[in-house]
Amino acid sequence: DAIKRICDVVNKSIVCSLARAVENDIKAAADALKDAKNRRIHTFIATSKIHMEHKLRMKPDEVIKRAVNAVKYAKLFTDDVEFSCEDAGRSEISFLKEILDEVINAGAKTLNIPDTVGYRLPHEMGSIIKELSNFVKDRAIISVHCHNDLGLATSNSLFCILNGARQVECTINGLGERAGNAALEEIVMTLKTRSDIFGDMKTNINTKEIYPSSRLIATITGIEPQPNKAIVGKNAFAHESGIHQDGMLKCQETYEIMRAEDIGLDKNSIILGKHSGRHAFKQKIESLGFELDDKDLNDAFSRFKILADKKKEIYDDDIRMIVSEQITTIPNIYELINLQVSDSSNGVPYACATIKNEEKEITDAAIGNGTVDAIFKVIDRISGFSGILKDYKVEAVSEGKDALAKVVVKVAFDEKHAVIGHGLSIDTMMASAKAYIGALNSFLLMKSNLMQENITNDSI
Amino acid sequence: DAIKRICDVVNKSIVCSLARAVENDIKAAADALKDAKNRRIHTFIATSKIHMEHKLRMKPDEVIKRAVNAVKYAKLFTDDVEFSCEDAGRSEISFLKEILDEVINAGAKTLNIPDTVGYRLPHEMGSIIKELSNFVKDRAIISVHCHNDLGLATSNSLFCILNGARQVECTINGLGERAGNAALEEIVMTLKTRSDIFGDMKTNINTKEIYPSSRLIATITGIEPQPNKAIVGKNAFAHESGIHQDGMLKCQETYEIMRAEDIGLDKNSIILGKHSGRHAFKQKIESLGFELDDKDLNDAFSRFKILADKKKEIYDDDIRMIVSEQITTIPNIYELINLQVSDSSNGVPYACATIKNEEKEITDAAIGNGTVDAIFKVIDRISGFSGILKDYKVEAVSEGKDALAKVVVKVAFDEKHAVIGHGLSIDTMMASAKAYIGALNSFLLMKSNLMQENITNDSI
Repeated sequence: DAIKRICDVVNKSIVCSLARAVENDIKAAADALKDAKNRRIHTFIATSKIHMEHKLRMKPDEVIKRAVNAVKYAKLFTDDVEFSCEDAGRSEISFLKEILDEVINAGAKTLNIPDTVGYRLPHEMGSIIKELSNFVKDRAIISVHCHNDLGLATSNSLFCILNGARQVECTINGLGERAGNAALEEIVMTLKTRSDIFGDMKTNINTKEIYPSSRLIATITGIEPQPNKAIVGKNAFAHESGIHQDGMLKCQETYEIMRAEDIGLDKNSIILGKHSGRHAFKQKIESLGFELDDKDLNDAFSRFKILADKKKEIYDDDIRMIVSEQITTIPNIYELINLQVSDSSNGVPYACATIKNEEKEITDAAIGNGTVDAIFKVIDRISGFSGILKDYKVEAVSEGKDALAKVVVKVAFDEKHAVIGHGLSIDTMMASAKAYIGALNSFLLMKSNLMQENITNDSI
Repeated sequence: DAIKRICDVVNKSIVCSLARAVENDIKAAADALKDAKNRRIHTFIATSKIHMEHKLRMKPDEVIKRAVNAVKYAKLFTDDVEFSCEDAGRSEISFLKEILDEVINAGAKTLNIPDTVGYRLPHEMGSIIKELSNFVKDRAIISVHCHNDLGLATSNSLFCILNGARQVECTINGLGERAGNAALEEIVMTLKTRSDIFGDMKTNINTKEIYPSSRLIATITGIEPQPNKAIVGKNAFAHESGIHQDGMLKCQETYEIMRAEDIGLDKNSIILGKHSGRHAFKQKIESLGFELDDKDLNDAFSRFKILADKKKEIYDDDIRMIVSEQITTIPNIYELINLQVSDSSNGVPYACATIKNEEKEITDAAIGNGTVDAIFKVIDRISGFSGILKDYKVEAVSEGKDALAKVVVKVAFDEKHAVIGHGLSIDTMMASAKAYIGALNSFLLMKSNLMQENITNDSI
């Protein structure tokens, strides 16, 4: 379903769907890609001894046969087929050559070499890629997919580029399984900063979109890059020590190899306030790279005004949050109308809420082991659901006691799914309530989507 | 002052103090190290063209002379002198050889080659270190210090080790200026996991202390590693996708190259609860690597009991927080006696607090733009200080609505210093109040220490 929806909005890029080397999986991938302008199917099977023996329980010959069949089957749906040797990092290179040769003949156009468990060092990945790209020549594109278990995903990917890889699989903020994948922002900015080494190796990525994209992904996933994360961390362009500050004042390049502006982070940007008008707000929104239609712009502006009444200075990150909340909002199945909380260190914290659902307003109260607990419990009581809180986080969006609080919760309303909810408010308690209700709405939306899909499938 | 206090407690390791290549700085470093069992002075000067021209405004010859004098002066206080070429990564290698030769003759025993701006790729750092270590031979130890601006600090350090470096400067959780320094945990675990490559290159680090140390540093600094941080991130040993989970169940090594136990993270550990006695608690504390005297143990146990009354399951991370709070507590100059808060979405949030200072209890109330704002404002009102909130963060220590909330604030009570405060409570509001008062106490302690130092200095 997610991939189907991606196909509806993406025009310029190729949409790729991943599938095990199994006909049903590939068929499902092909169905999801039906509406894509440019579609690719990416199928994979493990090629390391340990994976073949313990996970697949298959002989190498069977693995090759399965891979070839998968690629041929995928070719029925699209000419653009990518094949991956899972755990290639720990596979025998002679076997890799054998299987790659066969899948090329079956029609695979991109060959992906993943270091699935993040085991390899940069020079090892480099020499694997060198040998394979000499073997494959121009019969296919070599791709890499590096995991970060030892903290080496970025440099491993770079060494692969230097040795012939021409596709790099990476993610914004380095998100991914376990310690994540290679971080897109680190690879892109290294290629740019060290063009003396990488020469004509370029990406089509507009680097000024790196910071805004990182912020958006952090907001949606609730996974915040640590302050010392390279490129996109809060401190990546901050200079704390006196010696460094002194150097920076004398000459920027003494302590900086990139400019904050290059990743779309404008340190000298104008701060909006109470008296900023619609025009200044619109200009700011555009300078931050957002495109809003008139209705959304009006909505965002009125939220900005409410905030500006309470808060002296509105920073770029505040604006980003206001707009992100706008564009990532999901339907309000339940809606918070009113909230009161009371707490005392010698008494019992309680919360009283009025919540609207299908035009009906219900008010109730609950006690808790703390104010936040009480808020979540009264929402459960009113909605009739009972969520298990998996994660709770509050961060100040910018500086000052009057900063916006951004609350992210992860809640499991059933045994299978945990959903993320966000709340934004100058008041932490209000933001917590919004986040929890947001998670509940997101859960209900997901459930109704799943039900619809099942109905459609059943009717075929 | 910090270094003096480190000298008092550290016995087995060398305590090293950093100083610019200036006599006053070196003298101060020597004074701070007076009480150390094993002391080292580390002096540095920049050697890159851009730093010499724009920051130092000195000719290369003068730089050498300054370096030699600094090393000779440092030798008056200790035989163990380290010398750094700041921005070595962008320095000319012929000039590096020239200056290193001179400082070796002046008595430097460790030569540090920092990539100060995080500019170099692994193979470049490797070849710099190779050339320098062939030049220096056994006249001194070669050290490296890599910054993480492009996300390459760990692999850069590893390539330096492979090429002759025998000291690596790194930090827990990769903390440091801008995007930070090489992460200790990544380097140590790579050396261990890839002993086939690194052979007899070993550290004396007990890897089982990695996770506890990372937690402690995260708590003290308030800088949390992102969930996908290699080795110490929350998800580093989590397997989310179905395919990976399936593989893990069949054979752990299919998707893991290290075991969580190796870094001191015990995934199958016993969870304590309401009915756990003193004995079980003591065993748990010890298994987590803490050594507490009887008084601290009793204090920690009674806090555990209060928590266990409110919370069903007490996880290892809860226990770590209880004990960390204990051992990092600073004197209670101001102490929270009572707190009441009230908030309503249509009304005005307010907080009422009773705070004790020098045996006097003061009660007052304040309104705010949110509950947290109201709490901070009433503390300001009672104490007479006025803090500027630089950062505010809340995290759930473990899972569940009844999880402990850990609040970290960064507050500037004057223009020069921003201090960190922590609060731990099942109630987010209570934890916020504790954190802010903690920051205030820490600020006052620091100020009185600074005043004492000034008095001592003046009297000499």
